[in-house]
Amino acid sequence: MPRLYSYFRSSAAYRVRIALALKGLAYETVPVHLVKNGGQQHASGYRSANPQGLVPALQPAVGGPVLAQSLAIMEYLDEVHPQPALLPADALGRSRVRALAQMVACEIHPLNNLRVLQYLTQELGVSGAQKDAWYAHWVALGLQAVEDSLARSPDTGRFCHGDTPGLADCCLVPQVFNARRFNCALDAYPTITRIVAACEQLPAFQQAAPSAQPDAE
Amino acid sequence: MPRLYSYFRSSAAYRVRIALALKGLAYETVPVHLVKNGGQQHASGYRSANPQGLVPALQPAVGGPVLAQSLAIMEYLDEVHPQPALLPADALGRSRVRALAQMVACEIHPLNNLRVLQYLTQELGVSGAQKDAWYAHWVALGLQAVEDSLARSPDTGRFCHGDTPGLADCCLVPQVFNARRFNCALDAYPTITRIVAACEQLPAFQQAAPSAQPDAE
Repeated sequence: MPRLYSYFRSSAAYRVRIALALKGLAYETVPVHLVKNGGQQHASGYRSANPQGLVPALQPAVGGPVLAQSLAIMEYLDEVHPQPALLPADALGRSRVRALAQMVACEIHPLNNLRVLQYLTQELGVSGAQKDAWYAHWVALGLQAVEDSLARSPDTGRFCHGDTPGLADCCLVPQVFNARRFNCALDAYPTITRIVAACEQLPAFQQAAPSAQPDAE
Repeated sequence: MPRLYSYFRSSAAYRVRIALALKGLAYETVPVHLVKNGGQQHASGYRSANPQGLVPALQPAVGGPVLAQSLAIMEYLDEVHPQPALLPADALGRSRVRALAQMVACEIHPLNNLRVLQYLTQELGVSGAQKDAWYAHWVALGLQAVEDSLARSPDTGRFCHGDTPGLADCCLVPQVFNARRFNCALDAYPTITRIVAACEQLPAFQQAAPSAQPDAE
């Protein structure tokens, strides 16, 4: 059975949990606590499996290689377990879905994850209010770009691309979860909130939610 | 002929220029100056083509859709123009190469691009020295993870994966170019510097370099 190194609140791990659930793949969760003891992801045992010291990581088979980076893991799952597909069949559509996923994974999330917020407060001495403003700034900039891309495209359906959930939805839902947790206003993104509401009705998204994880606090 | 919206010094545009050159694809460069007049990427004309207001963007055919996000653009190029391939044929290898690319594109570059450095100085009032330390911190953390992943894998060859350049090399070379530009020490990354030196011997990488662009300053 595949092993997923995960932390219930990690946005990137949440993405992969959705992908696994959409494909109906059983897996074992190996919790890696990002805060306790200065962060278990930095421990040598975990680093020998994943030199990046980040979650998630997926070990498809016991004793086999450990895969890193949530987007790369989801692409792997889509190649090895093609149905249901996370990407459309046509190259332009695939590019659109990947770009939407990367608008979250390369433009919003990297600026707002735990280690960056820790650097801001611990190394740069910014105040709590400045940290919250930083967080809200990148969420607003990023989600506005996603909203504009979704709202003006005829390819947007019940989900980010057509009427079945895919790679972009796997990234968008955890990002919106984070935005809500940090009390970011979402009124300006009606297409995003409509799509996230549709996702949240599906069992796969419910099973992958932070509160449903074995390591949830 | 495809149109590439590019800025000579943009690391993400540099990745796509390498991919286009490796595949031998001719294209027209449309320069988008990221600094002049507060940034041409924010102008409404460009935003109507790419709502994200970021470079690069690729328009594969005149009048057709505009593709965003460098990794999505390179995957598109690899699907539509499969030879020479930017990704290996096996799912595990593809996942490894994508993860290496994302270790640059999702973990290092997003923290160090122009708009982030501008926020640090203009909104948070950090000093020049603090900004440089921030830059060097994320480069060191990120490149060390890439170095560890490359150094311990038998899949690493003359390039990041085997003996032909691919998606990971397209991301690594621009990141190292940036690190050098900001005087980050690279002594701790012998595998990375060896691979980058091998890449820089190839005409495709030379043609894609910032100094070789029509908008170079």
